[in-house]
Amino acid sequence: QTDEYELDGMTFGMPEAEVFTEDYDGPPVVGEYLTMLPNLKPLDYEGNKHHEVRIDIIAQEIEVADGVKYKAWTFGGTVPGPVLHVKEGDRITFVMKNRSDEEVTITEPTKEGSPFMQQVAENNFMNAQPGTMPMPHSMDFHAGTVAKDDKWRSISPGESITFDWVANYAGSYIYHCGTPSVLMHTAMGQHGVVVVSPKDGYGTDYEVDKEFVVVQSEYYLKKGAGDLYQYDFEAAQSVNPSHVVFNGHQTILHDRPLEASAGDRVRLHVSNNGPSGTSSFHVIGAIFDRVWLEGHPFNEMRGMQTVLLGASSSATIDFIVPEEGKYILIDHEFADAEKGATGTLKAGPR
Amino acid sequence: QTDEYELDGMTFGMPEAEVFTEDYDGPPVVGEYLTMLPNLKPLDYEGNKHHEVRIDIIAQEIEVADGVKYKAWTFGGTVPGPVLHVKEGDRITFVMKNRSDEEVTITEPTKEGSPFMQQVAENNFMNAQPGTMPMPHSMDFHAGTVAKDDKWRSISPGESITFDWVANYAGSYIYHCGTPSVLMHTAMGQHGVVVVSPKDGYGTDYEVDKEFVVVQSEYYLKKGAGDLYQYDFEAAQSVNPSHVVFNGHQTILHDRPLEASAGDRVRLHVSNNGPSGTSSFHVIGAIFDRVWLEGHPFNEMRGMQTVLLGASSSATIDFIVPEEGKYILIDHEFADAEKGATGTLKAGPR
Amino acid sequence: QTDEYELDGMTFGMPEAEVFTEDYDGPPVVGEYLTMLPNLKPLDYEGNKHHEVRIDIIAQEIEVADGVKYKAWTFGGTVPGPVLHVKEGDRITFVMKNRSDEEVTITEPTKEGSPFMQQVAENNFMNAQPGTMPMPHSMDFHAGTVAKDDKWRSISPGESITFDWVANYAGSYIYHCGTPSVLMHTAMGQHGVVVVSPKDGYGTDYEVDKEFVVVQSEYYLKKGAGDLYQYDFEAAQSVNPSHVVFNGHQTILHDRPLEASAGDRVRLHVSNNGPSGTSSFHVIGAIFDRVWLEGHPFNEMRGMQTVLLGASSSATIDFIVPEEGKYILIDHEFADAEKGATGTLKAGPR
Ligand SMILES: [Cu+2]
Ligand SMILES: [Cu+2]
Ligand SMILES: [Cu+2]
Ligand SMILES: [Cu+2]
Ligand SMILES: [Cu+2]
Ligand SMILES: [Cu+2]
Ligand code: NA
Ligand code: NA
Ligand code: NA
Ligand code: NA
Ligand code: NA
Ligand code: NA
Ligand SMILES: [Zn+2]
Ligand SMILES: [Zn+2]
Ligand SMILES: [Zn+2]
Ligand SMILES: [Zn+2]
Ligand SMILES: [Zn+2]
Ligand SMILES: [Zn+2]
Ligand SMILES: [Zn+2]
Ligand SMILES: [Zn+2]
Ligand SMILES: [Zn+2]
Repeated sequence: QTDEYELDGMTFGMPEAEVFTEDYDGPPVVGEYLTMLPNLKPLDYEGNKHHEVRIDIIAQEIEVADGVKYKAWTFGGTVPGPVLHVKEGDRITFVMKNRSDEEVTITEPTKEGSPFMQQVAENNFMNAQPGTMPMPHSMDFHAGTVAKDDKWRSISPGESITFDWVANYAGSYIYHCGTPSVLMHTAMGQHGVVVVSPKDGYGTDYEVDKEFVVVQSEYYLKKGAGDLYQYDFEAAQSVNPSHVVFNGHQTILHDRPLEASAGDRVRLHVSNNGPSGTSSFHVIGAIFDRVWLEGHPFNEMRGMQTVLLGASSSATIDFIVPEEGKYILIDHEFADAEKGATGTLKAGPR
Repeated sequence: QTDEYELDGMTFGMPEAEVFTEDYDGPPVVGEYLTMLPNLKPLDYEGNKHHEVRIDIIAQEIEVADGVKYKAWTFGGTVPGPVLHVKEGDRITFVMKNRSDEEVTITEPTKEGSPFMQQVAENNFMNAQPGTMPMPHSMDFHAGTVAKDDKWRSISPGESITFDWVANYAGSYIYHCGTPSVLMHTAMGQHGVVVVSPKDGYGTDYEVDKEFVVVQSEYYLKKGAGDLYQYDFEAAQSVNPSHVVFNGHQTILHDRPLEASAGDRVRLHVSNNGPSGTSSFHVIGAIFDRVWLEGHPFNEMRGMQTVLLGASSSATIDFIVPEEGKYILIDHEFADAEKGATGTLKAGPR
Repeated sequence: QTDEYELDGMTFGMPEAEVFTEDYDGPPVVGEYLTMLPNLKPLDYEGNKHHEVRIDIIAQEIEVADGVKYKAWTFGGTVPGPVLHVKEGDRITFVMKNRSDEEVTITEPTKEGSPFMQQVAENNFMNAQPGTMPMPHSMDFHAGTVAKDDKWRSISPGESITFDWVANYAGSYIYHCGTPSVLMHTAMGQHGVVVVSPKDGYGTDYEVDKEFVVVQSEYYLKKGAGDLYQYDFEAAQSVNPSHVVFNGHQTILHDRPLEASAGDRVRLHVSNNGPSGTSSFHVIGAIFDRVWLEGHPFNEMRGMQTVLLGASSSATIDFIVPEEGKYILIDHEFADAEKGATGTLKAGPR
């Protein structure tokens, strides 16, 4: 194991991950800075923080489009999983229990300490139902700089893992299960986003009125024997998705639009979680005033109609809402838009 | 409706669009700064200008490759539609009549006020023939920052729409019909480009010798019952284009090459109008000296062999023509190049 | 022919290429600055150099995955061909003989002057066997700025061509055969990389500990009549590769991992040689500290989890190896990763 060391002001060399068993049956997601999409918890602290974060793996039957349910493999019960917000330089002690063999209910009111579970209880648009599907899984945080050998290792149902990582680089990063077939594990629902806000911010921070997180991803589903849909291996291999969606559900960003006002500067953290396709992300009626590629403040672009995001790439985007009306978020690869990659931002009067 | 306001030196809040009927049967494209591809009308004015622009919707039978004709849905009679050139900060009063139910001839000599129609009359490589195909259509200018609710609304055959927009951001922007299925309406031919030149120019403006506009797009066509080809829904949905072309026609940029001389600095405004694919735009024998992503002067890159453009993304590109000879424009995604995405720049002696 | 001239400090106007016959049966690759992937020969000279480089075209039966052999069209005997390293401003006199009609053995010890052949002899992981497949071929160096008319022209078996070019722009560039069908000629194996190091370097040059070249490419192969696989036209046209690989072989970067130590700054020159697909290049467990798009020092990005490379695009990438362990290079388009686009960097202790 490499001892902790500093390089260029960053911290590397994390203690070895521990795999253990624990008698835990509490909320599958715990942590103050974890929220449900499209929300981002504001960072209300000075300097850096040491976060304690739990995201357990559970199986859930969820709806991803009208009439389309499948047994998802999830981080914390939703697809995508919770949004984690930290600051550049923060340290995270992460714990995860593989509870894929347990029926876990995620829709009951929860106590202090799990704002994510609270939001799911109030906002259960996927109609999540407990299910089981015992399976080894793992966690790969793109925001972390560690060896996969111990930190991203697979754990069996009933096992837990814990490790530390430091958010050395600002940006928006995907996380996902890294257990083979990674194509299948991510397509089955195991992905989410960590937003690492830069220590010194972005140039327009003080003008931002609204801030949201938007995740694009593909589903590869076909009709199963009963009511449920199931994973379509062939479609996934040939990159022929059945659904391409924002925030995990084909119509959620129309059913529950993002809200802003004319004249607002809206900031979106957009992540293309794949598993395989590109996104030509555009907002109908708006031009992106600022785009920071991968969410890093150094990578600034201006005046973009559309930003092309590869699989597991992201951008932090500012735009001004021109006037009252509806602004459509869209993957301007229209074949993908027709599969569902659209959403609405509804703007009220100035 | 949001009243007009200024923010960061830009203008937002356009008057509500008006839908009306008019007794107009003049040229379908009117405006001094509208040209046929690959040409761009130079901006011969100081400061900003208020443009009056008409682009009517008409159906035309056109040729897109040797022996391949189909009944296109067009902006002004060609695919892509006319190139509009304005300056950052200009205001445009736009009018559009949906004449998809009228037989409109675009190849007759026209009077003053429509340089575009003049160029089509002299240069009718698509062998356009009047046709009709009554259908609601709309206009979405990516260069505009307005609400789609009224400005980009669909109008029926016989209806006209007018609205204002301000070119707040420099760059090259696509425009297209936004009526569902947007995949079909753009694939059927309804797209074009607006070039918004930056107020303060690009760093190399005074060295530019030649300037052209190049649009890449996909056709999804299959043999119909008679002589004409028709839209292939399935191919469009699975992004399996029959033709991938520059400036609307498979061989036009070979049949009528761009022309320059050895030692020239050539500027290309390249737009990938999709509807779905990417373009790895390259010029055989040249290296891009400057690339401004999305055409915005802030987004400068240097020394690029190839620039990757997503659907509805663009770049402004400078390169030096090394020596006498032929330089091939190409989508370096060779499967697309084999479907036609190539063209020629012919360079004479220095 | 355009006489040689200088523009913006660069050199254009190369003498006309000569096609000739020669009685040459020496090593198919000659030149001091040519190496076998993943190696890059360090530039050990001050100022600029005039290089003499030979890369002959030969057919070879090679293995690209366990049990998958085909008769490759190659530059110098391997797929990809040799890596050429030069400095911005260097001049190259290139000679190439089309020996596709000759059985050339590439695995025998060679004399001084061909470090590439030496490396192949010591490191023949493709189990290359001499074969013949007489066919016209050509060479297109993206790093060169010349007219294709004479320099990139096709030569028949038994013919040789020679021409000069100057590396005017820093960056990593692909080279490939430009003979139609270009899709087929590149997919059959005719591609490689030239690294043009910038005169004034990159900002982090003095901190780099390890430097490698990684090429991604697609194979389109199907079972043939006998033991050998053969080119699958249909799969190539519909961009459905059978194998997507790093450095020409599905498992080579696992069988012979890149090696480094915890705390090292590793530099990768990554090129996506296509012929058609994109690469969302990522290293599991690392974040890219610096990315220079197309390898040009002006195009600097920071803190990227993933870099999206179009066909014939490249990036020069620095990352810090966090700790002891295995770091997986991957095309994060997981459908492509499952076809083989993965590799290993093995990190020892700090
Ligand atoms: Cu998993
Ligand atoms: Cu659009
Ligand atoms: Cu339309
Ligand atoms: Cu090329
Ligand atoms: Cu060849
Ligand atoms: Cu990953
Ligand atoms: Na990472
Ligand atoms: Na939708
Ligand atoms: Na817009
Ligand atoms: Na062509
Ligand atoms: Na070149
Ligand atoms: Na592999
Ligand atoms: Zn601590
Ligand atoms: Zn505000
Ligand atoms: Zn897409
Ligand atoms: Zn006015
Ligand atoms: Zn000049
Ligand atoms: Zn393409
Ligand atoms: Zn010399
Ligand atoms: Zn070091
Ligand atoms: Zn790929």
